[in-house]
Formats: sequence, C-alpha cells, structure tokens
Amino acid sequence: MVVLSARLLSPLLPTLAALCRAPPRQHRGLSSPSGPGYSLNLGGIFPPLATPFSPTQEVDYAQLEGNLRRYASIPFRGLVVLGSNGEYPYLAPRERLEVVSCVRRALPRDRLLLAGSGCESTQATIKLTVSMAEAGADVALVVTPCYYRGGMTSAALVQHYTEVADASPIPVVLYSVPANTGLDLPLEAVLTLAQHPNIVGIKDSGGDITRMGLMVHKTRQEDFQVLAGSAGFLLASYALGASGGVCALANVLGAPLCQLDRLCREGHWQEARNLQHRLIEPNTAVTRRFGIPGLKKAMEWFGYYGGPCRAPLAPLSPAQVEELRGTFSANGWL
Amino acid sequence: MVVLSARLLSPLLPTLAALCRAPPRQHRGLSSPSGPGYSLNLGGIFPPLATPFSPTQEVDYAQLEGNLRRYASIPFRGLVVLGSNGEYPYLAPRERLEVVSCVRRALPRDRLLLAGSGCESTQATIKLTVSMAEAGADVALVVTPCYYRGGMTSAALVQHYTEVADASPIPVVLYSVPANTGLDLPLEAVLTLAQHPNIVGIKDSGGDITRMGLMVHKTRQEDFQVLAGSAGFLLASYALGASGGVCALANVLGAPLCQLDRLCREGHWQEARNLQHRLIEPNTAVTRRFGIPGLKKAMEWFGYYGGPCRAPLAPLSPAQVEELRGTFSANGWL
Amino acid sequence: MVVLSARLLSPLLPTLAALCRAPPRQHRGLSSPSGPGYSLNLGGIFPPLATPFSPTQEVDYAQLEGNLRRYASIPFRGLVVLGSNGEYPYLAPRERLEVVSCVRRALPRDRLLLAGSGCESTQATIKLTVSMAEAGADVALVVTPCYYRGGMTSAALVQHYTEVADASPIPVVLYSVPANTGLDLPLEAVLTLAQHPNIVGIKDSGGDITRMGLMVHKTRQEDFQVLAGSAGFLLASYALGASGGVCALANVLGAPLCQLDRLCREGHWQEARNLQHRLIEPNTAVTRRFGIPGLKKAMEWFGYYGGPCRAPLAPLSPAQVEELRGTFSANGWL
Amino acid sequence: MVVLSARLLSPLLPTLAALCRAPPRQHRGLSSPSGPGYSLNLGGIFPPLATPFSPTQEVDYAQLEGNLRRYASIPFRGLVVLGSNGEYPYLAPRERLEVVSCVRRALPRDRLLLAGSGCESTQATIKLTVSMAEAGADVALVVTPCYYRGGMTSAALVQHYTEVADASPIPVVLYSVPANTGLDLPLEAVLTLAQHPNIVGIKDSGGDITRMGLMVHKTRQEDFQVLAGSAGFLLASYALGASGGVCALANVLGAPLCQLDRLCREGHWQEARNLQHRLIEPNTAVTRRFGIPGLKKAMEWFGYYGGPCRAPLAPLSPAQVEELRGTFSANGWL
Repeated sequence: MVVLSARLLSPLLPTLAALCRAPPRQHRGLSSPSGPGYSLNLGGIFPPLATPFSPTQEVDYAQLEGNLRRYASIPFRGLVVLGSNGEYPYLAPRERLEVVSCVRRALPRDRLLLAGSGCESTQATIKLTVSMAEAGADVALVVTPCYYRGGMTSAALVQHYTEVADASPIPVVLYSVPANTGLDLPLEAVLTLAQHPNIVGIKDSGGDITRMGLMVHKTRQEDFQVLAGSAGFLLASYALGASGGVCALANVLGAPLCQLDRLCREGHWQEARNLQHRLIEPNTAVTRRFGIPGLKKAMEWFGYYGGPCRAPLAPLSPAQVEELRGTFSANGWL
Repeated sequence: MVVLSARLLSPLLPTLAALCRAPPRQHRGLSSPSGPGYSLNLGGIFPPLATPFSPTQEVDYAQLEGNLRRYASIPFRGLVVLGSNGEYPYLAPRERLEVVSCVRRALPRDRLLLAGSGCESTQATIKLTVSMAEAGADVALVVTPCYYRGGMTSAALVQHYTEVADASPIPVVLYSVPANTGLDLPLEAVLTLAQHPNIVGIKDSGGDITRMGLMVHKTRQEDFQVLAGSAGFLLASYALGASGGVCALANVLGAPLCQLDRLCREGHWQEARNLQHRLIEPNTAVTRRFGIPGLKKAMEWFGYYGGPCRAPLAPLSPAQVEELRGTFSANGWL
Repeated sequence: MVVLSARLLSPLLPTLAALCRAPPRQHRGLSSPSGPGYSLNLGGIFPPLATPFSPTQEVDYAQLEGNLRRYASIPFRGLVVLGSNGEYPYLAPRERLEVVSCVRRALPRDRLLLAGSGCESTQATIKLTVSMAEAGADVALVVTPCYYRGGMTSAALVQHYTEVADASPIPVVLYSVPANTGLDLPLEAVLTLAQHPNIVGIKDSGGDITRMGLMVHKTRQEDFQVLAGSAGFLLASYALGASGGVCALANVLGAPLCQLDRLCREGHWQEARNLQHRLIEPNTAVTRRFGIPGLKKAMEWFGYYGGPCRAPLAPLSPAQVEELRGTFSANGWL
Repeated sequence: MVVLSARLLSPLLPTLAALCRAPPRQHRGLSSPSGPGYSLNLGGIFPPLATPFSPTQEVDYAQLEGNLRRYASIPFRGLVVLGSNGEYPYLAPRERLEVVSCVRRALPRDRLLLAGSGCESTQATIKLTVSMAEAGADVALVVTPCYYRGGMTSAALVQHYTEVADASPIPVVLYSVPANTGLDLPLEAVLTLAQHPNIVGIKDSGGDITRMGLMVHKTRQEDFQVLAGSAGFLLASYALGASGGVCALANVLGAPLCQLDRLCREGHWQEARNLQHRLIEPNTAVTRRFGIPGLKKAMEWFGYYGGPCRAPLAPLSPAQVEELRGTFSANGWL
C-alpha cells in the first residue's frame, strides 16, 4: 500500500544519522511523576505534527521529511502524527498509513511515535489501530468518537476503549478534545480505563486544570500518565502532576516548550512562569483563534514548511496574518 | 464484500412491481410552496432509513429490503439513505455505495432517493457525491463538515458547498444538524447558497422555528425548499412554509406522518395539531432521548427490522426500553 | 420620590374614557384553546412595556402615560409591566410599585395588567407579589430565580412557585426566559405546577416549539394557558395551541401583532404566514440582536417615547441604528 | 439605617480582643507578585462567608459572630462578605449593610474586609458601594451585572465599572463568576479596567487557567492583583502568578487552604501539589456539585454553624449528604 522507494528514502539517511547522534533525553532527578515508575515514559513534549500539503492539497512527503529534519535537534520526547493538528479527518485511510510510515522511517528509535487511530465505530478504530502498529507507531492515540455524542455515555465509551485496547498490539493513549468533538471523556470513564493494562495515559485538551489535577490524583496507583493537550496550560498541568504535553505550538516553538518542560522538572517555577506567560498568546493564536491555518502560517516564520490546509479549512486573510504575527512579536518571539 | 447477484435480486422483483403500482403521490391544491414552482418537488415525508445490521454488526441487506417492502405502501415522497439515522459514520465507503445501490433497486422511480454524501474534506465530499449519483441517488444530502468547527466560518462553508454543488451531477440539499455536528449552518450562508442552481434545499434539524420561517421568507424568490429535520416541529415548519420533512420517526410511524403532511397541506390545522401533539413525545424518544438504539427498538414494535447498532452505540437497558415503550403507548400508538 | 397627584392624573382621564370606549375584544368562533374554558382568558397579545426613563435615567411617568394613550387604540388583551423588557432589575422596589400603580390607573378594567414580581428568594417574591396585587395587578408574572442556577432543580422550582402561588392574592403566570436567566423551567415542573389552582399559565420565551406543543398537549386537562414569549415564533405557537403572546415587538408593531393574532384565530393561516414572515427580522432586531436599547430606538420611529435605558445598558451606535432601521424598512414597516 | 445598639455589640468585645491578639500575617520572602509592590496587598486566602440563617431563615447574627470567633485563629488575609456564597441575592438591602457592620466590628483591622456590592444597574451599584464603605468595608467586590447579558458588551462593562470605581470611596475588585452569571468579564475589559487607579484586582471564578496566566502577564505593569475564585485551581493560579484566593472551601477547611497558600509562596510545590490534590473533590462538592446547601452542611462537620439556606435553595437529601461526606472522608479530612 505504501511504497517509498530507496530513492525517496535516501535523502533521509543523513537525517537519521543526525537524529541518532542526538543525546538520549534525560530527566534529571525531578519530582515529576514521569520516569522510572512507568512502563512507558511519556514525560516530555510531543508536537502533533501538521501534515504538509502541496499547493494542490496533496500530501507533500518531501516537506514532511524536511520538517522532521528541522525538528531533529529539539529534545522532543517524541512526535504525534494524525492528531487533530494533522488534519487527520481530511486524510484518506491510505494517506494515514503512508504518513505514519514516512515519519517512522525518519524518527530515531528513542523517540516515541504516537499515531492517531480513532474512528467513529469501534471496529474501524480497531482496524486502523492495528494498521498503525504495523506501520511503526509506538502508541495509538485514540480520540473519542463523537458524532452521536448523545449516545456516547460513560459506559459506551468505556466499552469502546476497552475493546480497542484489548485488540491493540501497542499501548493506547486516550484523547479528549472537546473543542473539536463537543465531548469530554467523563472523568469516571478515565478512571475506569486507567486500570486497563494496555491504556497508558490520556491527552486532555480541554484545559480544565481542576480535572487534570484530579486525574493525576485518582490514578496515582496506576501505570497511567496525563498529558496536557495544549501549551496554554502546560506549566499548570505540570504543577498538578502531568507528565508531558502534546502541544500544537511545538510545531512552531518546539525549543522553548522543551525548555519550559525542563524548567518545571527542575523546579525553576519562577523562570518557568515567565516563559509560560510569553507562550499563552501565541498558543491561543495557533489553536482556538486561527486554528491550523494559523499554525501553518506561523511555522513558516520559524523555518518550517507550513503550506495550505485542505479545504474547507481556509487560509488566513492578510489582516488575520498580521494579527497572528502581532501575538508572536509582542511576546518577543519575532 | 457484498455482491448482489441476480439471484439475490430476484426476490426484490415483486417488490419493485408492487412499488411501481403505488399511485403517484399528488398534492391536492394546497397553498404550500412545494409543488409546481420547483424544478424538483421535495414536498412530503422522507424517512431517513436506519441501516439494518446483523447480530455481528454486518450490514443486513435482506432486512433492508424487507423494511423497504413494508414502507412501499406508505405515501412517502422518497427515502433518505446514509443520513445521521443511517449510522453513516460507521459505514465504510464501500458499504455506503452498496446501501445506496440496494435501495435504488428497490425503489420505484417516482420516489426520490436522497443519499448522504458529506465528508469532512471538500475533495472527499465531491468524490463521494459523484459515486452516490452513479449508484443511483437522485439528490445528495450534504451534512456540514464539523470537526474543525472553529474554522467553519460562513465563508468557508459557502466555499465548500459551492465546490460540491459545482461538481455534483445531481442536485444538492444542505444538511444542518447541530445536535450531532455542534454547528449551525449560518443563515447568511444558506441564503447565499440558495442562489446556486444546483442547490435545491436544506434539511434543518436544529428546530429553531424562527430560523425556519426566515429561511422560507428570504429564499422565496429562489428554487429552494426547506425541509424540517425532525417530526417534533413538523407542523410548525409547515405553518411557516416548509415543503416537507425528513423525520427519524417516519421509520416507525410513517403513515401518521404522511397523514400529518396531508392535513397541513389541506389546511386542516386543528386535526393536524391533535396529531402533531401525539407525535412529539415518541419523536423525542427516538431522537434526542434514546437515539438510534431507541429508534431501532421502536421499529420492531411496528413490524420493521430494527436490530443492533454498531458499537460504540449501545443497546437500551430494559428500563430504557420500558420508558421508550411508555411514550408510544401513552400517546395511543401501542 | 414620585408622587402622582390628582393634577398629574387628570390628563389621564380622557384616555381612560377613550380606552373604555374601545370595543370589548371578541374571539370569533375559533378552535383556539383560549376562551370560555378558562377561568381567566389570557388569549391575545400583551406588550411587555418598556419603562421610559428621562435623560437622567429617572422613570418618566408622563412619557409612560403618553405611550399608554397611544396603545389604547390597539386591541391588546392587556399589558405586562416589569417584564424583562421593562428593565425591572434596574428598578428599585419603590419604583416597581409606582410603575404598576401608574399603569393600573391608565388601563381600562377589561384589559389585563400582568406585573412581574419574581425575585431571587421565595420570601421576597411573595412580598413583592402581594404588593403588586395591592397596587392593582390582575396577574403576577413570576420569572424563575436563577442566580444559583445549579441549585434550581425541578423540585426546588416547584417548591418555590407553589409557595408563591399559595400566598398570592392574584393568579400567577410562570415565566421562563432562558436568554436572560440561563435556565429553562423544566417541563416536568411546568406540568406539576399547572395543576395548582392559582397558576394559570406560562410565558415561555425560549422558542423551543416542540416544548410549546408538548406543554399545550400535556396540560390540556388543566386550567392552564401557554403564552409565546416572543413574536418570532408567535404563529408557530398558535398553530400548536398557544393562547396568546407577550411580545417585545408589540411595543413597536402592536397593531400588526394583533392582526396576526386575529388571522390565526380565524384560521387564515396563509395570510398569517405572510405577516409572520415580515415580523421575524424586526423581532430579532429588538430582542436578541439589539435588546432593549434597540427596542426603545425603534419605538421612536413609530410614534412612541423610547428614550435611554438605564446603565449599564448602552445606547446603539449609529451603525447599529442603521442596521436596526434596515430590518424594519426591508420588511415594509418603514 | 442600621442600628446595632451597644447591648448588641457587647458580646462581640471579647471576640474583638481575641482577634486582635492574632499575630499579623507575614509573607516570608516569596517570589510571588503579592507584597510590597501593591498599594493594597491582597495576597492570601479569603473565605467568602456563608451567611447564617436561623431555622426561620432570618439572618442569625449570633451564629455569624460565633463563626467569626472560630475563624479568628486561621491566618486568613481577610474575609469576603456578600459574595455568591453569602446568598447576597437573597438579602434585603438593609440586611446586607447589617451583615457588613457586624463583621467589621468583629474583625481586627489588619484583616481586610471585602464586601460584595454589585447590583444590576450602575446607579444601584454605586449607591450600595458607598454604603458598604460607610459600614466599614475595606474593598468593594463588584460582580458583573448579568441579567441582560446580551447587552453586556466589553464596552458596556468597562463603562459600568469605571463609573463605579470613580464614585467608590474604597478600592474596587472586579468579580467574574460565569457559573452564576453566565458571563465572563472579557479579558480586554479586565486589561482596560486594570489601569483604573481605584481598581486593584479581580476575583475570577471561571477556572480558565490560561486566562488567569494571561491576566497576570498583561497586567504586570499595573497595580492589579489576580485572585483565584475557587480552591480547585488555587495552586495552578499561584503557579501562574495569582496573589491569593477567595475560596468557598475556606469556610470549611480554612487552615489547610492557608497552608497551601504558604507552601506555594515558599516554593514547596511538591508538598503543595499533594495538598491541592486532596482539596479538589471537597471543593467541587461544596461548589458546583452541591452548592451552598452542601457548603453549609460541611461547615457543621468542622465545628462551624451552617444551618439552612434561604428558599428556593433546598437542603440536601440524605443520599446527597452521604455523598458529600464521602468526598471529605475519602480525602482524609474526616
């Protein structure tokens, strides 16, 4: 299904070498919950990769590889592909697998590859999860099904995720993103699912810090990690005991986010606060305010390929671009 | 997966014949906007077909044909396949086409076949719309894309629907269902799109009767019809000038809904009101309250095949079944 | 503060006389539920009076009387004072009573005077209801308490309204206005309260026509009438069996609304529809879109005193005034 | 208006003496923004006092004084009276002033007294603010007017608060509590108002930690302090730079909250996190889950007078009391 010829791969080889030389990420003696206690350490920053498209809206694998090369020097814990910011609902099943395969080849083994595999039906989700594992994903990130949100009770969601986790050859991370799905994975469902041996964490993008704290607290006996789903509440989540963050903004400002991660782990909260403050507005601009079109535009200012979104996501107007730029320059990033 | 051989089709032939004998639906001298003025008359009731699944959750085409036979004697204006009540997000692309083909074969030519073809991306929607036309759909019913609802501005949606309507070989009906999508197709977008020669109407399931009236009023110069998306506000929609209704409840109580349609067209508003009153609670029960699992359960009480939903939609509990049944019996339907 | 001397009252006397000459409103043989069956007939249109303020934001009783004189020739069923459109939360307790007294003096006895008396606490509501009755109100219109909406369960609201209705010397009409209160009076609470002998109806401004129909249907054995709380869904409410309407727009377009009431009662639904269509946009403009500042501005164009609102309600900008005017002229009212 | 005779005051005198012996609160060398830089230091914990009622729902001043005596040994920065938890919408104007006077007499001068004075209209808010100052309040806590929330634009709210702050003889703290008002004071309005010399801070109960961080960041040049409006996000707010907290839970668990405040100020984030985790569920139980009836019930378990709420706030059912108690015992507080 996926055919990446040697010719296509050859430009990647130096990258791979470079990535392999990258020193293994270390967590220096922090009081964070991430680390030795977990079967799979999710501690750190993960950019949910934007999917590059050509001007004709085809997946542009060369640009994807280019971006991966540029990210190689940033001490990310890993990458997420096919998250919300990857425009996964706009990708055909075949494209989804190709993107995962492409990223897997470029990524050193010590970096984790999380791949979005959530579909509306349980059976489709299981099928895609298995395919993702075969294509090289380390972890499946499974968004809540949502079209029939009235029927997505806590019991129905527990059943869904249990079947998926039972069938998945790789660990599963739950994914709650109410801004897109209109649905919060209920806390009681999270607590039940945290006990499943193949469910290792949750990416929560809702931003309810009270809920984040409670999830950490009530799963403290489990092999379960909480990831902040946005850079806007990253420091707060760490303060409450989160392990890491999957942050759209990491596509743009990956190094500062890894620095924020480090400052929190090392207990430099005052410095962390100052850095966090400067990241809030840029983060809002590339998420809630301007969405993926804003994210891709900002990526271009920082040396990455952004390019167009697939329709119906529309490009920003010149006035919006100016406003977007203003949030980065006002906070000292441009 | 499914191959409809001639052998499989043969049992359908009598059905087809029976259906062809069904007298053509007539609108007897009503002051409704539906009728001669429109290039395609959408006036009347359309059940959005539930998709029958076997106990193992495979599409059960025999049961689908059985239901179609039972519906043949009800004076529906046509059928909708792959609407929200058809669990379309749970059907693979191939299944979607097979369902349309199957229904087309069973349906007399004087009944309209509307097929859901909305996807998240514009290009996937166009592709599926074309396939639906090839499979025999008369009209494409295109739900609003919604995952990135923050980016689904009026302008983006106008652009999306315009491209789809330009490319579609069959007329397009807009479809706004905020309970599922979290998104109302903005009125100004509807008014702009109503001017497109290949967009002939809207199915609006939101239930805002003020908006329904305003849509009828402001598109009165256009070849554009408004369909109520639920039986709960059918009479009210007709009173404001709607042409017809696409009502989940028509899977269960098709004949009474066609009678309500007739009473409204003939100006028997008092009788219509009494009938409408008795339909509100059953309608709520098979939509907002218990969703498709409730709809399928109720279908069984009225001689249709209901069967299971695909996971993660869960079957009703016994207590829920009892409550559901109560709404039908309390209103004199059981 | 305000002392209505005999001298002040004298200009009202001719008005009173004129009003008394107004022919008694008759309902000519309609199948509407309003009428003989009810102990108190609420059938018809009620403007919820705007409270006129002087430029210094004092209640301007002379302008109030002037408006009442102008309304005298319109066949309203009665008037509402101290509803949401009367800026009642901005009036001191003393002012509330003075406004009721003033209107009572100017209003012929065959017109009903409904006065808002809802407060947050049960005891304050009872006290104000009794005072309103003493000041001449025929009916108390009691809005749902809402500040602690999390605690306003169906049981709590049933208890609240029961105590108020028990203590009230005049009949009580429930009032649900979720746009202001963030709270829908639950249907089950309405059905329970409809059985109270001193609760005679509900003004529902929520606009959910399915709920309106169900309320009519399920209270059909009770002495209970449903009033549409806005002109936007007046025809639809009548079609479902509502008795009347309390419509902000009646401050501006009282005669057309009474005509719409008459057309519906006489079964001229096609004419009614055409009229209703032209009222939707003006109605939205003076309610949801521009609120009371918009309502008062529009009143001035139709010969009434509008004047300022109390702060913090702010006057419209010139651009907003233009947009407001456009909705009236585009629909043929200016 | 308020007459508290010497006889009434005499029982308070020992209390006052006891309170005066309480050692002045000190902030030991923390990097928090609270402290010397502000004209009025709001750093620390403030319980928003519940108002005690007798079984007949009259204000019980003796029980209020009893609670104040018990709070005297807890190092609160001050007290809030007539906040949402004080059932202020249920108190008559005269009762509001009496409560403030009573608390002022019992409170040592080094503790701040914040008094709620927000009304719907600007003029009523100004009048009550002046009265509160005369009755001894140090600071006016002014909730957003909300009944006409559609008209409460950023500009209207800026105008409202500016007029109030101009007229107020005491500093003003803004108060945004969307769970009750359905209205978030817009960030841009906060930033504008932060520049007013008589507006010294905001109590934000919304719980959006990203907004909290941004408010601290964008007002860092102003004499403006941010207070967390709930104990659930207290640590997170401090981590982002908030100065203090106004927490319903402080009526029940005042000492642990002051300990959490101290741990954060001294940089003991790991200990703080563990304490915060145990406070989340009890906090939710006495706020969102069970409201003031739950708060008052829990107060009784910790030695305070709780008593009934005014109607229509209803007492908890036995099952609810049990659930409430469970949240305290499961977290080690009972």
